[in-house]
Amino acid sequence: MDEIKRLIKLSREKKSSLHKKDFLLSWEQTHDELEQVLYLAEALKLMRAGNIDTRVFNNGLGISLFRDNSTRTRFSYASALNLLGLAQQDLDEGKSQIAHGETVRETANMIAFCAEAIGIRDDMYLGAGNAYMREVGAALDEGYQSGVLPQRPAIINLQCDIDHPTQAMADLAWLKEHFGSLDKLKGKKIAMTWAYSPSYGKPLSVPQGIVGLMTRFGMDVTLAHPEGYGLLPDVLDVAANNAHASGGSFRQVSSMEEAFKDADIVYPKSWAPWQIMQQRTELLRNHDLAGLKALEQTCLAENARHQNWHCSEEMMALTRNGSALYMHCLPADISGVSCEHGEVEASVFERYRIPTYKEASWKPLIIAAMILARKFANPADILAKRLEAAVPRICK
Amino acid sequence: MDEIKRLIKLSREKKSSLHKKDFLLSWEQTHDELEQVLYLAEALKLMRAGNIDTRVFNNGLGISLFRDNSTRTRFSYASALNLLGLAQQDLDEGKSQIAHGETVRETANMIAFCAEAIGIRDDMYLGAGNAYMREVGAALDEGYQSGVLPQRPAIINLQCDIDHPTQAMADLAWLKEHFGSLDKLKGKKIAMTWAYSPSYGKPLSVPQGIVGLMTRFGMDVTLAHPEGYGLLPDVLDVAANNAHASGGSFRQVSSMEEAFKDADIVYPKSWAPWQIMQQRTELLRNHDLAGLKALEQTCLAENARHQNWHCSEEMMALTRNGSALYMHCLPADISGVSCEHGEVEASVFERYRIPTYKEASWKPLIIAAMILARKFANPADILAKRLEAAVPRICK
Amino acid sequence: MDEIKRLIKLSREKKSSLHKKDFLLSWEQTHDELEQVLYLAEALKLMRAGNIDTRVFNNGLGISLFRDNSTRTRFSYASALNLLGLAQQDLDEGKSQIAHGETVRETANMIAFCAEAIGIRDDMYLGAGNAYMREVGAALDEGYQSGVLPQRPAIINLQCDIDHPTQAMADLAWLKEHFGSLDKLKGKKIAMTWAYSPSYGKPLSVPQGIVGLMTRFGMDVTLAHPEGYGLLPDVLDVAANNAHASGGSFRQVSSMEEAFKDADIVYPKSWAPWQIMQQRTELLRNHDLAGLKALEQTCLAENARHQNWHCSEEMMALTRNGSALYMHCLPADISGVSCEHGEVEASVFERYRIPTYKEASWKPLIIAAMILARKFANPADILAKRLEAAVPRICK
Repeated sequence: MDEIKRLIKLSREKKSSLHKKDFLLSWEQTHDELEQVLYLAEALKLMRAGNIDTRVFNNGLGISLFRDNSTRTRFSYASALNLLGLAQQDLDEGKSQIAHGETVRETANMIAFCAEAIGIRDDMYLGAGNAYMREVGAALDEGYQSGVLPQRPAIINLQCDIDHPTQAMADLAWLKEHFGSLDKLKGKKIAMTWAYSPSYGKPLSVPQGIVGLMTRFGMDVTLAHPEGYGLLPDVLDVAANNAHASGGSFRQVSSMEEAFKDADIVYPKSWAPWQIMQQRTELLRNHDLAGLKALEQTCLAENARHQNWHCSEEMMALTRNGSALYMHCLPADISGVSCEHGEVEASVFERYRIPTYKEASWKPLIIAAMILARKFANPADILAKRLEAAVPRICK
Repeated sequence: MDEIKRLIKLSREKKSSLHKKDFLLSWEQTHDELEQVLYLAEALKLMRAGNIDTRVFNNGLGISLFRDNSTRTRFSYASALNLLGLAQQDLDEGKSQIAHGETVRETANMIAFCAEAIGIRDDMYLGAGNAYMREVGAALDEGYQSGVLPQRPAIINLQCDIDHPTQAMADLAWLKEHFGSLDKLKGKKIAMTWAYSPSYGKPLSVPQGIVGLMTRFGMDVTLAHPEGYGLLPDVLDVAANNAHASGGSFRQVSSMEEAFKDADIVYPKSWAPWQIMQQRTELLRNHDLAGLKALEQTCLAENARHQNWHCSEEMMALTRNGSALYMHCLPADISGVSCEHGEVEASVFERYRIPTYKEASWKPLIIAAMILARKFANPADILAKRLEAAVPRICK
Repeated sequence: MDEIKRLIKLSREKKSSLHKKDFLLSWEQTHDELEQVLYLAEALKLMRAGNIDTRVFNNGLGISLFRDNSTRTRFSYASALNLLGLAQQDLDEGKSQIAHGETVRETANMIAFCAEAIGIRDDMYLGAGNAYMREVGAALDEGYQSGVLPQRPAIINLQCDIDHPTQAMADLAWLKEHFGSLDKLKGKKIAMTWAYSPSYGKPLSVPQGIVGLMTRFGMDVTLAHPEGYGLLPDVLDVAANNAHASGGSFRQVSSMEEAFKDADIVYPKSWAPWQIMQQRTELLRNHDLAGLKALEQTCLAENARHQNWHCSEEMMALTRNGSALYMHCLPADISGVSCEHGEVEASVFERYRIPTYKEASWKPLIIAAMILARKFANPADILAKRLEAAVPRICK
């Protein structure tokens, strides 16, 4: 109870403009704004654990638009809406008339008359996903200002072509929980490394989100990948600047071994080179199935040359005391389990399986916190009221 | 606040039997019943704007059955349910066993044990959609009377083969808002005209709904379309009789220019001739894909002969002071935007874009009002109680 | 009101461990546990009829996973969730990444962070459905015990390869309502008989559920089917042992006539022999479409030899006073209605149509009762509190 009050107080003390802007890229937010979201998420977690109803809305819709498959993000978003009292409504572009020449700005308004939040996952097209979210945002601003919409829904970036802010922030919340505080993250070595996977075309948003965010908190961030698997140059600049400003560091190395050496945290994950995503985007745009098939073959062949990028027990032994924290956004490609050769050795994954679940458990709370921070200038006061009212979530 | 009370009082004064019948065709309702729905919708709008929780149901389901694609109607219905506290549940005939020989009356009961509303869109089959809704209604009546169902759900016509009452009523609410009152609509000239579109097979329900409803309020309604694009004869009779009774007028002309001349309101929209819809219905019934393709070609070729039916700036210049209100149910076929040649010139649509959004914004409120009017003999008293309780929608 | 209190009291008096285990097979539950669920369901029914809000949860999710088509079960589950205040969220394996090598235990945790119930229908694979539910249950136990999940969701068996407990319990509730009490079921003759259907591959879960449950209440249960249409041997043993323990009887006969003779209740329904389901499972596993087609042909031909297994008026005349209660889980294959020759003669079905709807109407209540019994050690006290609070379901 006192801890909840403390967290609410902390979130209140942060200077934040999140109620005036959508959280589309973590590096567009101030340090205070990031902390505000973390504290709100922690407060929500404890309130729910204490059987306190966290609904801020007695009615209202939360809309989801998934342009790529999703289980965990879909359920994390639905859970976040439910925590706040919003009813989930999915915009299925298959069932809708969007394909029939509707413009984005029209659709954005048509679905939003009662909407408090719109969660979007659009990570397939490099250069398009984040831009699409901003286009929707501009349409919502116009609709709200011109009196079409009685409220301006929060846009939640559920993964775009550039960043995966709900994932990265959930990862940060998990690190804060695991190590005890944000201060304790200072100087911690985190290795964000590429890992081999038999699949291809995995988005860049996770590794970019991690190096873009963790460099904000004084961590020593190492990015490692085989030659030709680089991230977007702009994001690399962001990471370097962040590290410089936060007193941390950001370096790139070309072997998993080097990255894992003395690491406190490892995040081995497969992704496709951005140049490949660039080509893929073009092929998808042109519905060039033959081209896509050919590209896939090339990439899989190229990937196959790097099967040694494998989070094995030997690799883990290189980390600090051989016991670095293993992280993954899930699902991981587990060697001998979900595929023959994958990102991680089965025994390593099994040892860290429950921790990765806990890592994931922060996502609904982070999303709910982002909605609160976007919808209200004083989200801390809103939660304080719920805490005071102390309506039981379960009437037992 | 006083305005809300005034609207509730007005809706209370209307003599209505809407709690005993489904709102399936606007011309089956009395003038008082139409006004009751309008006032309830306006009251709901102001209550929500005033952060007053409009939930009348603490639990209960609202079911949707879409037999044609839909974005805006789907979200309008979901929003209406949410305004009243009902949870939306979609009956997806693909996922269901309906195709496996289930009878309508059985399904209607099986889905309705906890249902307070069932919204149906069924506009593909001429002669079938509205009839289907009545069949469902009869099954629900039997289920309720025989003690199978603890309540009789309201059926909401979300567009049928004959009428589109939620659209037409939303259009009326918008006209009332735009011109200031129902009285001020008397004598206003509205042009419901066909317009060219590169697509075909668009339902007749919108133009029929408009001429069937606007003739109730003393408006001078002009229907215009190329030869061979007529509406259902019965509906034309309805419009003529309505106009006679309301002191308005109803006339048909054969050119867009003539219809637009001195018009206060224009509603240019494409539709397929009912004779064509008749043939199309047969072909759909027989799954005659070749026949459908051939019919489409014939129709598109016929349509192409009428590209001059285009809501251009020149056309708009013919209207009263060149500034008639442009209306559309959306999405519109916008020349140079959503198609090469369409229903409306881009500059015209852009000038009236926000007004068409406002027009659409009335639909969730109209649907919610229709549910209230169907479920309760005294919907005004129900809203008055919510107003008195004044539970905040957002706990801030 | 007094009746509700009486039912709550009765459910309180039953010794139950249902809060510690999932209700996956009716024969794994004690007699007291079965009665507890019945009384809770009856109390919920009367509370709702009395316009008393039955929501126990102010927020929380209820997840559904359907691996086979469903209308009535889908809506029954959604209705049950709504009665308790839970928001339904469907896990569509098509839209999800489950196909991409995700493990069951991971998915179970990823979807359950805010889930209070997970309803699963998995009846296609003999030997797999019930096992899958237990696998999910074990994963949820681990997630809850290790602090990943703040609560342990109830698993609801919405039909598996072995049993259909929500159907059988709803059938029992209906029999209790129809005959007046559980005591009055003692000595009643119920005929669970195979019936001809032009389709094939219908699950064994309904007949197995019926003989497995009705033998618990001192009924004289007769199972009848053509040679080669046997049920799982284990379930037959369960039924025999139940009958012995309850003072009822269980016998198998080889003709519908013999089973219908002097029956008080008849339950004529088609199913596939378990040996066939065994083969079908293998073929489905191997995606052997040709094999499936061939098997279907063989089975339909075999079925066709038993068209005389038809619940005709003549057959009904053999029952006690020619007026046995006809039951069916729906949809029934009605001769001349949903097929040329089916399970039941049209006039018989029509006479019992409304009773079968009432039979079905118990399912949402049974599911809600099962969730309450699984989630709370003292479900009776929970309902008593809602009754005392007496919040109106509809604010009128």
